[in-house]
Amino acid sequence: MEESFVPFRGIKNDLQGRLKCYKQDWTGGFRAGFRILAPTTYIFFASAIPVISFGEQLERDTDGVLTAVQTLASTALCGIIHSLIGGQPLLILGVAEPTVIMYTFMFNFAKNRPDLGSELFLAWTGWVCVWTAILLFLLAILGACSIINRFTRLAGELFGLLIAMLFMQEAIKGLVHEFRIPERENPKLLEFQPSWRFANGMFALVLSFGLLLTALRSRKARSWRYGSGSLRGFIADYGVPLMVLVWTAISYIPAGNIPKGIPRRLFSPNPWSPGAYENWTVMKDMLKVPVLYIVGAFIPATMIAVLYYFDHSVASQLAQQKEFSLRKPPSFHYDLLLLGFLTISCGLLGIPPANGVIPQSPMHTKSLATLKHQLLRNRLVATARQCMHKNASLGQVYESMQEAYQQMQTPLIYQEPSSRGLKELKESTIQMASNMGNINAPVDETVFDVEKEIDDLLPVEVKEQRLSNLLQATLVGGCVAAMPLIKKIPTSVLWGYFAFMAIESLPGNQFWERILLLFTAPSRRYKVLEEYHATFVETVPFKTIAVFTIFQTAYLVVCFGITWIPIAGVLFPLMIMLLVPVRQYILPKFFKGAHLQDLDAAEYEESPAVPFNQLQEGELVRTASFADDGEILDGMITRSRGEIRRMSSLKLTSSTATPCKEFQSPRFSDKVYSPRVSQLRGDLSPASVGRGPFSPRTNEVKPSNLGKTG
Amino acid sequence: MEESFVPFRGIKNDLQGRLKCYKQDWTGGFRAGFRILAPTTYIFFASAIPVISFGEQLERDTDGVLTAVQTLASTALCGIIHSLIGGQPLLILGVAEPTVIMYTFMFNFAKNRPDLGSELFLAWTGWVCVWTAILLFLLAILGACSIINRFTRLAGELFGLLIAMLFMQEAIKGLVHEFRIPERENPKLLEFQPSWRFANGMFALVLSFGLLLTALRSRKARSWRYGSGSLRGFIADYGVPLMVLVWTAISYIPAGNIPKGIPRRLFSPNPWSPGAYENWTVMKDMLKVPVLYIVGAFIPATMIAVLYYFDHSVASQLAQQKEFSLRKPPSFHYDLLLLGFLTISCGLLGIPPANGVIPQSPMHTKSLATLKHQLLRNRLVATARQCMHKNASLGQVYESMQEAYQQMQTPLIYQEPSSRGLKELKESTIQMASNMGNINAPVDETVFDVEKEIDDLLPVEVKEQRLSNLLQATLVGGCVAAMPLIKKIPTSVLWGYFAFMAIESLPGNQFWERILLLFTAPSRRYKVLEEYHATFVETVPFKTIAVFTIFQTAYLVVCFGITWIPIAGVLFPLMIMLLVPVRQYILPKFFKGAHLQDLDAAEYEESPAVPFNQLQEGELVRTASFADDGEILDGMITRSRGEIRRMSSLKLTSSTATPCKEFQSPRFSDKVYSPRVSQLRGDLSPASVGRGPFSPRTNEVKPSNLGKTG
Repeated sequence: MEESFVPFRGIKNDLQGRLKCYKQDWTGGFRAGFRILAPTTYIFFASAIPVISFGEQLERDTDGVLTAVQTLASTALCGIIHSLIGGQPLLILGVAEPTVIMYTFMFNFAKNRPDLGSELFLAWTGWVCVWTAILLFLLAILGACSIINRFTRLAGELFGLLIAMLFMQEAIKGLVHEFRIPERENPKLLEFQPSWRFANGMFALVLSFGLLLTALRSRKARSWRYGSGSLRGFIADYGVPLMVLVWTAISYIPAGNIPKGIPRRLFSPNPWSPGAYENWTVMKDMLKVPVLYIVGAFIPATMIAVLYYFDHSVASQLAQQKEFSLRKPPSFHYDLLLLGFLTISCGLLGIPPANGVIPQSPMHTKSLATLKHQLLRNRLVATARQCMHKNASLGQVYESMQEAYQQMQTPLIYQEPSSRGLKELKESTIQMASNMGNINAPVDETVFDVEKEIDDLLPVEVKEQRLSNLLQATLVGGCVAAMPLIKKIPTSVLWGYFAFMAIESLPGNQFWERILLLFTAPSRRYKVLEEYHATFVETVPFKTIAVFTIFQTAYLVVCFGITWIPIAGVLFPLMIMLLVPVRQYILPKFFKGAHLQDLDAAEYEESPAVPFNQLQEGELVRTASFADDGEILDGMITRSRGEIRRMSSLKLTSSTATPCKEFQSPRFSDKVYSPRVSQLRGDLSPASVGRGPFSPRTNEVKPSNLGKTG
Repeated sequence: MEESFVPFRGIKNDLQGRLKCYKQDWTGGFRAGFRILAPTTYIFFASAIPVISFGEQLERDTDGVLTAVQTLASTALCGIIHSLIGGQPLLILGVAEPTVIMYTFMFNFAKNRPDLGSELFLAWTGWVCVWTAILLFLLAILGACSIINRFTRLAGELFGLLIAMLFMQEAIKGLVHEFRIPERENPKLLEFQPSWRFANGMFALVLSFGLLLTALRSRKARSWRYGSGSLRGFIADYGVPLMVLVWTAISYIPAGNIPKGIPRRLFSPNPWSPGAYENWTVMKDMLKVPVLYIVGAFIPATMIAVLYYFDHSVASQLAQQKEFSLRKPPSFHYDLLLLGFLTISCGLLGIPPANGVIPQSPMHTKSLATLKHQLLRNRLVATARQCMHKNASLGQVYESMQEAYQQMQTPLIYQEPSSRGLKELKESTIQMASNMGNINAPVDETVFDVEKEIDDLLPVEVKEQRLSNLLQATLVGGCVAAMPLIKKIPTSVLWGYFAFMAIESLPGNQFWERILLLFTAPSRRYKVLEEYHATFVETVPFKTIAVFTIFQTAYLVVCFGITWIPIAGVLFPLMIMLLVPVRQYILPKFFKGAHLQDLDAAEYEESPAVPFNQLQEGELVRTASFADDGEILDGMITRSRGEIRRMSSLKLTSSTATPCKEFQSPRFSDKVYSPRVSQLRGDLSPASVGRGPFSPRTNEVKPSNLGKTG
């Protein structure tokens, strides 16, 4: 994206780009059928559970003025509006932790002012929201988001890890509190006797670790060896919500002599209880706020505006990372404008505003990548099977699959790069097959393993549409009505879920992976090369990786420390914005340009991206890739954000193997291999001649920079 | 072993065979140095913890007449004697669950007789032991153990799984009891209030699952990616005892208001408390037992003799499975004779006798295989590094390694088969290297990864010696003195340890692996072929495997059901002995001979084994194998009991790869490949020509019998 600050230009471009695919956003979603429910449920839980928990936190901190009902309502309202008229529908909106911290600070300020008090608190926040919205409008109109590319991987991943740390902190805090007496409760109750408190804490440990471990396991169900494919798919898709249900059910097992309050469960008023509606009429009180405070509201408004500008844009950016190969255009400027409107609406309704959230937004894109993969796969498997029933040859099978693949890309506006994915592979496979001498012979499933072959052919693609976002936001709204049911969930299950979200957000974060690399034994570093890995592992000396990572870690620790400071804590986004000049002006003095480029590819240092054209369903396969199965796909989209490159295959596949020439084609990486690696490959080739399929030792490349530290 | 019932011949052969290597049994153990401590500690914990727990059980059931002090004393005494003058030093002795069940039955019988009572109970068991010993003498002298080969894999693995089920049952029972009031305790104590009981139960869940999960993890530490090699090795070797310490320490964290009895800890009298010595003088009471009961003692004695005959022999057999490639001879007859003497000694001392235990005995061999591997490895790594410092060529490096390897096999009495392991591989690697054109060029570690290469060369070998057995038995004896420390271990940690032992005994059990295969999705069965697997996976149709496995499972369930019957329960060994005629006369009517052969290789259907010759340290490499690392070695000796065969390598190894010819050599399996597989391999070879090291799809073989069910 070029950096342009001409007023309204960014918004105009965004609107133009997104309007072109608006219709397809809906038709594509409906065409996916029931399968859209898997990502929807997944993201709904990831969205609703933290919002409910933040609502609980707000209730404690605002003496019950705001509750989970308000946070759920805000998330649902903003989510529905954004999914309908927002720009980037992959972006998930919700009430986030920073908002909760800001509102707590404002409440503590307001309740101590005699001319404001907790009665006029919501009216005053209404004014804060008005000012915030005005600032957001200005930022959107003046094109502030066009500097989004200066938020490099460095800043984005550091922020992602910071959020993960905050989630994990929340989980640990929550668990510790299970052993204590909650502040708002009567400490004389039976369940707060030392024995029952200890029992409650231990029960909480069991429930939260139970949820965490089973949820992590269930996400990997696709690679399980047991059970039918559909069962495994179901568990992988719905395992996490299922585990919330299971562990809630388990929490009811010890009935008998156990007091009602053990384990502790969610505490929230029913939306139909008296007083729960007070906030909705806050607008009429807004003129009662003294003028001084109306003007003073500008101060917190600037902080919230900076926060939202950064948070919203980075969430959107993380949901549109390069390796997802998205085809539809981004919409940073227009979305920020819409966020302004949403903020003002929430302010007038007396509910805390929602903004783009991490890690839910990238989780959303990830779950849709799996969906698109499954849809394509089913179609191609059916086609191939049909062909084989007719005793077709291998060449014919590939031809009909190619046809079916292209049929799914209606309307057929193909450009050179877009048709590559399936075609090149087809050719190479046929060539290989002709080596085997059976190009025209009928194939059967012994020779040609349909499902595996097709998984190998499909590139990573994301089903970009608006339906899943609309549905999840609506479901969040439904939670308000389902409050009596939601209150049955033990709080300890929530803490387990928080830990789960923190852990789920780690793989794919290169910063995290570099931290792990520091702790990897030198003799084991070659293992990193055996998996999908980013370029820097091969091109940057280990010592440089280490220094860069230690700097980033130190910065992260400082940011995390700042969130602990009572009021200044909300300023932590400023620390992250500070990374932009640090990255641009200071880091180049300490690191070589080429190394920085690989460790933290800044957009403004890179070659221009392929321009977005009038593709509608045409697939722009920028990074071709081999998905061996759902599980491998998961691996690709989580493990290798950044360049998807495959050094070598660990999987043993069927007899119709692709010649290695395929894997040496430049398509697999935009960058050339480092000279060291190429040289090694040269060394290897003669040795590989004559190796049979049972050779135990092939395919390793071991660049020396992993073994040495310099 | 030939079936011969000439009196004393078996004992004589055993003695002759073991005497030849008796000296080496000791020198070999001492030569291993400090490293012998790893298997020793591992097996000591595996031996002591169940014995302590069985002692607790006995104490409850015999009103305190027998306690953990007596079970520990018996285990130590028998263990020390067996390690000094026993035949097979890999066999671990201990007081086992069946013995506990028998003693409970006898106590219940005795205490209700007015002329016996609990005072004369131990004296009466003394007579039972005398009779048992006489029967064992007869069995040993008459060569009953020569039919040990009729206890095929079918019986042995069924028994192994049954023991695992009993251990798991004990773990679950123990955990459930943590929520209840123990029988012998005063129910009015503070810690037995409902709230504290619930708290205790939940705490027990945390501790036992904590131990189970961390212990399972720590056993795999060698394949971790993080931490230094020595740290990983240390955790893998000592992780389990370490975890017992860690979770015991954790159990002390919640101090404060918690009553002293939470969590519950081991309960046993100190050996120096009054009355703990009563049993040692039981001999003088033996003549007080009425003659009728002396004669009647013959009835329980027969049952115990049958049980010990079977249990002792099968434990010994499992510790000497073929895939361990043991070099020293077995000693079934003589060990049974010695067991008779041990039983009579225990009886006269008034302690329950010990016998060969499962799964500790095979665990012992397994841990010694790792040890031997490490010793060889260190020596060869040092040699190779030294050569490379001198700029030696690849050929020279292999030559000096060959030399070093042979030096370790003193005295050098080599036969044709014994020198194969390293030699053939050396030749093929050199040949490969000459293809690469660098046979005479100096090698460096970039090209030649010393540690990995050597791991690839080393065969599975077991350090057969007596020291580890002696040390572990002595340590068990030390437990009697360390009772005050041992009593600090929470009972819940014990339950976790029981579950750990049950799970640790599963991998490698082909019966268990066949059960898993039944639940493997048909589309995933090919994954089994990608790993080490037994022959039957390729040669027997899936339907046959399924029927065989279902029959075996039904039989197992019946056996398990029998252990629940109050008194007849001790007869379950008879059920397993019944499998011998079932296998020999009934099963062949339902299954093809070749299939039975692969599913359950009965010795009497197989070609005779390589006879044991006068080797002392000469290595008889029967099944050559490739160990990639400690972790792979673990995989080999646990996963593929039965024929070690490697269809294909999943690991990517260094550039000096071995041509596949190596892998087609008949050395890898005594049996020829099934025609189906060979044909497929034939199909594949043309396609493999010209594949480079980056080829992603090699090495899969997918026989159709896994895909179909018939």
